[in-house]
Amino acid sequence: MRILYHLPLSPFCRKLRLALREKSLDFELRVERVWERRPEFLALNPAGQVPVLVEEGGRPLADSSAIAEYLEETYPDRRLLGRSAVERAETRRLVAWFDQKFHAEVTLNLLFEKVNKRFYGLGNPDSAAIRMGKQFISGHLDYIADLSERRRWLAGDEFSLADMAAAAHLSCIDYLGDVPWDAHPRAKDWYVRVKSRPSFRPLLGDHVAGMPPPPHYADLDF
Amino acid sequence: MRILYHLPLSPFCRKLRLALREKSLDFELRVERVWERRPEFLALNPAGQVPVLVEEGGRPLADSSAIAEYLEETYPDRRLLGRSAVERAETRRLVAWFDQKFHAEVTLNLLFEKVNKRFYGLGNPDSAAIRMGKQFISGHLDYIADLSERRRWLAGDEFSLADMAAAAHLSCIDYLGDVPWDAHPRAKDWYVRVKSRPSFRPLLGDHVAGMPPPPHYADLDF
Repeated sequence: MRILYHLPLSPFCRKLRLALREKSLDFELRVERVWERRPEFLALNPAGQVPVLVEEGGRPLADSSAIAEYLEETYPDRRLLGRSAVERAETRRLVAWFDQKFHAEVTLNLLFEKVNKRFYGLGNPDSAAIRMGKQFISGHLDYIADLSERRRWLAGDEFSLADMAAAAHLSCIDYLGDVPWDAHPRAKDWYVRVKSRPSFRPLLGDHVAGMPPPPHYADLDF
Repeated sequence: MRILYHLPLSPFCRKLRLALREKSLDFELRVERVWERRPEFLALNPAGQVPVLVEEGGRPLADSSAIAEYLEETYPDRRLLGRSAVERAETRRLVAWFDQKFHAEVTLNLLFEKVNKRFYGLGNPDSAAIRMGKQFISGHLDYIADLSERRRWLAGDEFSLADMAAAAHLSCIDYLGDVPWDAHPRAKDWYVRVKSRPSFRPLLGDHVAGMPPPPHYADLDF
């Protein structure tokens, strides 16, 4: 069986969980407490990060973009990036937008401060960082609204890896209750559509010990 | 003519300058002072970052990985990622290693502190960050040494995008004179080989006003 080493609140792992299910590929999830730096895990990925995917009898694959491209090349029946080279470039630009820009401006300021710091023993959240994260998220929600009004989904007509990357980050922030949905009804419309996809259901069942999500987190009609 | 909007000391732009030349694709370089946030440039890339590639009569393409993948798909004669899906996953893993891990641990601590902060008007370099960057670089040079002894190039038998990403970052740090080559002779052997490639020559001619490189920077026999 294919194995995905992951953490429930890692947006990069969530993006791949969505991609694997959209491609109808079975996999087993294994939680990897990366902060323990297990030698057996470092042998799979010297960067010490999740996600890592191991195909049955295959070499371990690391880095969420490298894994997503591998899945797209190996299992092309359900395409997640688009048809033409230009369409794929647009999907990848938006994946990078969320995995880098949203990550630096929002995810690190909110999720890292409130969750990861605790596991790494790095002390209390920095309130200035949390304020920054809450300021930056609005611009990203506006961008999602603009894209999803011009197009059916963020990168074009199809539900693509761009939507998965965006939803992966936002769903982690939503687990913290920090997405101002009511102030962003157009972005919310897009997220309602994402949330109702069967591939998204397992993410709504995630539960981190000692840190329950807010009641609306798993609610499809929030 | 194909246009690449760039900055001379951006490792992400340098990676693409190498890729374009390795693929024998002509292009015109345009320096974009991203900190000025020109509206015409923001229309090409709302993220406001270089590199941006515009093919003759084509849509603007943004994000260095999205552009590299586009080039690989559109001009496949000289492959930069590898042949099989697993080989390509390994190349992409290493590109991410340098574009993310090396970038966060070394490039941001040295290049951003010493160069970008000045352009952005963000004050003086933080000496603690510079110390961190100088500490972290050694582990990366060891990793390059290990990989280039097990393989001909970093990702395998061919000079690939992994070598280009690594050399792009290191060449920017070398412009500052901050690569401890003498303590890392095996990594230096690899860099000597990279430096002697025709695709690398234009990078050695880069010159940032008021900030000359050290004498060894452009020296092939340093």
